[in-house]
Amino acid sequence: MPAGPAPAFEQYLELNRERRLESYKALLRIPSVSALPEHASDCRAAAEAIAADLRAIGIEHVEVAETGGHPVVYGDWLHAPGAPTVIVYGHYDVQPVDPLELWESPPFEPIVVGDRLQARGAADDKGQVHLHLRATEALLATSGGLPVNVKFVVEGEEESGSVNLDRWLEANRERLAADLVVISDTGFFDGNRPAITIGLRGLAAVQVNVYGSTIDLHSGSYGGTVQNPANALCAIVARLKGPDGRILVPGFYDDVLPLTEADRAAFAALPFDEEAFRGSIGVPALVGEAGYTTLERRGARPTLDVNGVWGGFQGEGSKTIIPAHAHAKITCRLVPAQDPDRITELLVSYISEIAPPGVRVEIVPQHGGRPSLTPIDHPATKAAARAIEATFGVAPLYIREGGSIPVCASFESILGLPVVLLGFTPPDDHAHAPNESMDLRNYETGIRTVAHLWYELADLPR
Amino acid sequence: MPAGPAPAFEQYLELNRERRLESYKALLRIPSVSALPEHASDCRAAAEAIAADLRAIGIEHVEVAETGGHPVVYGDWLHAPGAPTVIVYGHYDVQPVDPLELWESPPFEPIVVGDRLQARGAADDKGQVHLHLRATEALLATSGGLPVNVKFVVEGEEESGSVNLDRWLEANRERLAADLVVISDTGFFDGNRPAITIGLRGLAAVQVNVYGSTIDLHSGSYGGTVQNPANALCAIVARLKGPDGRILVPGFYDDVLPLTEADRAAFAALPFDEEAFRGSIGVPALVGEAGYTTLERRGARPTLDVNGVWGGFQGEGSKTIIPAHAHAKITCRLVPAQDPDRITELLVSYISEIAPPGVRVEIVPQHGGRPSLTPIDHPATKAAARAIEATFGVAPLYIREGGSIPVCASFESILGLPVVLLGFTPPDDHAHAPNESMDLRNYETGIRTVAHLWYELADLPR
Repeated sequence: MPAGPAPAFEQYLELNRERRLESYKALLRIPSVSALPEHASDCRAAAEAIAADLRAIGIEHVEVAETGGHPVVYGDWLHAPGAPTVIVYGHYDVQPVDPLELWESPPFEPIVVGDRLQARGAADDKGQVHLHLRATEALLATSGGLPVNVKFVVEGEEESGSVNLDRWLEANRERLAADLVVISDTGFFDGNRPAITIGLRGLAAVQVNVYGSTIDLHSGSYGGTVQNPANALCAIVARLKGPDGRILVPGFYDDVLPLTEADRAAFAALPFDEEAFRGSIGVPALVGEAGYTTLERRGARPTLDVNGVWGGFQGEGSKTIIPAHAHAKITCRLVPAQDPDRITELLVSYISEIAPPGVRVEIVPQHGGRPSLTPIDHPATKAAARAIEATFGVAPLYIREGGSIPVCASFESILGLPVVLLGFTPPDDHAHAPNESMDLRNYETGIRTVAHLWYELADLPR
Repeated sequence: MPAGPAPAFEQYLELNRERRLESYKALLRIPSVSALPEHASDCRAAAEAIAADLRAIGIEHVEVAETGGHPVVYGDWLHAPGAPTVIVYGHYDVQPVDPLELWESPPFEPIVVGDRLQARGAADDKGQVHLHLRATEALLATSGGLPVNVKFVVEGEEESGSVNLDRWLEANRERLAADLVVISDTGFFDGNRPAITIGLRGLAAVQVNVYGSTIDLHSGSYGGTVQNPANALCAIVARLKGPDGRILVPGFYDDVLPLTEADRAAFAALPFDEEAFRGSIGVPALVGEAGYTTLERRGARPTLDVNGVWGGFQGEGSKTIIPAHAHAKITCRLVPAQDPDRITELLVSYISEIAPPGVRVEIVPQHGGRPSLTPIDHPATKAAARAIEATFGVAPLYIREGGSIPVCASFESILGLPVVLLGFTPPDDHAHAPNESMDLRNYETGIRTVAHLWYELADLPR
């Protein structure tokens, strides 16, 4: 197996540059905003366009599959016997365009501005789906085949919560048998230096409801005789985390994978300006768990945050009551190998235990999500790194994101597959914002990276 | 000086019973709801009616005094040289009548139902003002004078916060020189057993505002790197009070008068069913500061209660943010001899000290109020007790209320006068509620009690 695509691959790409850009623009002209019902037919049109594209380049079993919501486009090429099978996941739906008045050009009329193609979806994620199709097209056109088996899954509800995807994955478990998932829907850490996102945090969530009297009580006539639900709620929340930022729920850290020397070195290698970060959000100081850097705390350590708290009188002036009830929404960001169900259980049990007397405390578990990690030394991560070096000419940075991408956890938990997050856009791509754009140099290099990756993955241990 | 009114006093009252009831009803027919602008002229009409009544019975210097809001009615009788001077305070304004549909008879059409006169204001406070006027009328008519000097102050904004009274008291400080204030605007503790309210709690209030970032932050992208304002707020509130109910603000208890044996005996003498009290408000258990009974905690111990708390997302489902800010409204009920300004200072200083890093904490003092106490062994309290025994035939109970009556604190702090709270209505008088009523037996006995009190006060040490 060669270490990369044949010279004809590059020639093909050079010859078709203009046609490629036109095809990219055509896809971007479809206003496939999944969150807005009036764009349902546009979403379907985008799905059909992807399906037609897949068929045209030689992908088989192409189907616009119904999900109950916007359809999933499926297609595969399975003629590399003995080679690994890779699922390429992406999405054809886009974010709404509000506020429209901040766009410098109409969001669904793509234009080239300098090195960039500007339009809603140029980066997130139509552009990155499109570059995958172009890599496959060029490989099939010039080599007559691919070094790996590929299954495309392009959904249409990523920007509105992927609400139907899990069920579709469950229902198509057999058809989706594979070795690996590659997703190009993330970005770089800083500037235009390529990066691989190796970790995402998971989520556990509870709502705490504290009930006292059936009605708000006069704080004069009753103050001193009853537990105040708002004070009780604060007492509970205060006991969840220590002043050193450590979460005090017993067992909370039991399953946390400790940071390795390599992990810490990867964090330390990221170009990160603490003071600029602090200034950008306007806080007086960055704080968090003792013993870890800011990036480590964000990427590799679990958290416990109150997302909302309320109870009693919130208006102007004063109302001297003891509130009848008080509430807090609490989420924990989880890291490998914490289990959201287990963490939720620990939270429920601990909060029940520390609940003060005189009030009834109810703890309602909310929807959670698993953390995700494909380590730096995973063969697939290493393959992606080699593909990046071969095409960008520089080693990638390794990012552990603080947030969650639910679809990663779905692929890991439903299909049991590792996920490689190989995105090609710099942080200034304005994804989800006005004037979204894709750097066309990254788009082009991305096509080459994907092709190289298929070669690098051909001998992935299975 | 005789120990009570002459026999002619009682004969006069007997002869005029019917006329008295008609006069009482006439006052109740005026819908003097101070909180509603459309009743401003009714408030003025009630003030004029009180003024006319005062003039008719022989009170001098009667004036309907402007305050900027509803007027204050002033009048005096100062012909008892060498005897003490008593201010009688009451109010002619009444609560709104909503919900009207729950009234069994129109609120401003007084009717006698059994032993009671039912109408808005029958008890609170027109009825109790009216009985004071009738006692004075009968004494002046039958003895040609009073054993003490009396100054009437009947305001019209008590039910809407007495917003103009303090300024009027300040402006009339000299005219209001006196030895004592008697207020008949409270009630009994239980059933129809007479009571004297000897203590009221004061108030200190602060709003705590905790600010983090300028915007709500994504709890994935920022969780672990910043202090969460809602967590920080809970941490602050949790450090204000210990699990034993003790307030942890240094110096908070410094000026609290300890309970004497007599105080504790008075609390213990009150007929109080803890379980019924608990059941009536639906809390799982009564809790509070260790070492004190429920009534002691309510009447004679200070408190710290969150009246309201808010920050971040309060809707259905979840929104994984770190709120930009979080807030709590906190009030302390104060007891003698705590000073609201001093307590507010202590709160501000302590909260500033315990504020966690990474957030900006702002503490905004709110309007406070002084606690009030005229002890059981105060000569004026003793005089009132003797007057009650002489007329009700039973010794009074002594109540220390958990709430505040701001006007008491005003008389104490602006005029430097002790206040005797001598109310005549049982707890089921429905003051502030539909079907307010006054037990006419209490109204009649109240007239006699007031007359006796003037004789008992004649030799009050000055």
